[in-house]
Amino acid sequence: MSDRLLINLAILGGTGKEGQGLAYRLARAGYPILLGSRTPDKAARVADELNQRLGQASVRGMANDEAAGRCHIAILTVPYEAHRPTLEALKERLTGKVLVDVTVPLKPPKITTVYVPPAGSAAQEAQEILGPTTQVVAAFQNISHEHLVQDHPVPCDVLVCGGDDEARMQVLQLVAAVGLVGWDAGPLQNAVVVEGLSAVLIGINKRYKMRAAGIRITGEQPPR
Amino acid sequence: MSDRLLINLAILGGTGKEGQGLAYRLARAGYPILLGSRTPDKAARVADELNQRLGQASVRGMANDEAAGRCHIAILTVPYEAHRPTLEALKERLTGKVLVDVTVPLKPPKITTVYVPPAGSAAQEAQEILGPTTQVVAAFQNISHEHLVQDHPVPCDVLVCGGDDEARMQVLQLVAAVGLVGWDAGPLQNAVVVEGLSAVLIGINKRYKMRAAGIRITGEQPPR
Repeated sequence: MSDRLLINLAILGGTGKEGQGLAYRLARAGYPILLGSRTPDKAARVADELNQRLGQASVRGMANDEAAGRCHIAILTVPYEAHRPTLEALKERLTGKVLVDVTVPLKPPKITTVYVPPAGSAAQEAQEILGPTTQVVAAFQNISHEHLVQDHPVPCDVLVCGGDDEARMQVLQLVAAVGLVGWDAGPLQNAVVVEGLSAVLIGINKRYKMRAAGIRITGEQPPR
Repeated sequence: MSDRLLINLAILGGTGKEGQGLAYRLARAGYPILLGSRTPDKAARVADELNQRLGQASVRGMANDEAAGRCHIAILTVPYEAHRPTLEALKERLTGKVLVDVTVPLKPPKITTVYVPPAGSAAQEAQEILGPTTQVVAAFQNISHEHLVQDHPVPCDVLVCGGDDEARMQVLQLVAAVGLVGWDAGPLQNAVVVEGLSAVLIGINKRYKMRAAGIRITGEQPPR
């Protein structure tokens, strides 16, 4: 039995495109997924669809608070306007856990202009709301859901920021598990760059008529 | 005669590593370079060295204010602590011109942590200091001088941000002229991402024992 079966991953606000994409990739990598939503019925329906595609019952749909309470590591994939209320509602359930914040702070309709939240980034805002007993790690913001829901290799690296070394390493392990190239991008203050890069990439998609632009880190790398 | 000979490019604070690298690449592309420094003697010495390497007298060393006054487009390559005083001293000379800000706001010794200036970015700070008659464009921050001073193709794209469409396009043309891949990265507010990315890349160099890490934009691109 794989150790991965012992780790419950929650995807909170997981019925959106990014959440579904991450659920698909992580379930395929062998992790049991608790797919959370404000609407448990919707979560159950999306979980059924994912399980059919996966050919196995790896994803369970449930309410966000149940998923947050039962998981070891939580991944938050909500639109920015739902970021604060979702975290405030789930704060108790996330105590002592790692929260992977995938949120990109966008202020529609100006989604190609970087918006910097008062806390410095959405991830720092999450850390403020949740307090020091939860370890917030920022990751996955730049990966288009268009890549995640397919089975091809993803042409985009993942920059991982967080204040806690162990939590950052755990998230880098999840990144590697789903076949992506991850980079330790330093402390949580650096999340402003990773989050803002998504607005820059949306702009590049529009201006250059591209789909799913991403980034790669270049340079002389040691063997991984 | 190439049109490039008609365009005077100033590199202000140009005797540092990044300034020398850009001077070398731009001179090699056929642009006359006014290499500015607080110390004109040092500028003259560095210009001589560059001209010897180039095999032609394309670079002239002079004081920053003379270079700023005589150029059509100015490129600023100073350490962050010299950013505000340099711009305040040169404000009059830069009126009506394009300023390409290469400055990365770093707060030593924490050079792997993103620092966000009160104005939002160093480039926005420059725009505030210079006022609306100068068009500030942020570019070239992520390119390591180690690549610029060599003759090999540079494995790092250039993200270009600025509030004025024409100025942004002019800078994208300079980027292409030196053989780099440039991307229109949107308004000047987005400079926080491009500047901060340099701190992230410095951190990646340290953590992964790499040299001169950079970025590439990925995705399905149209022909350029």
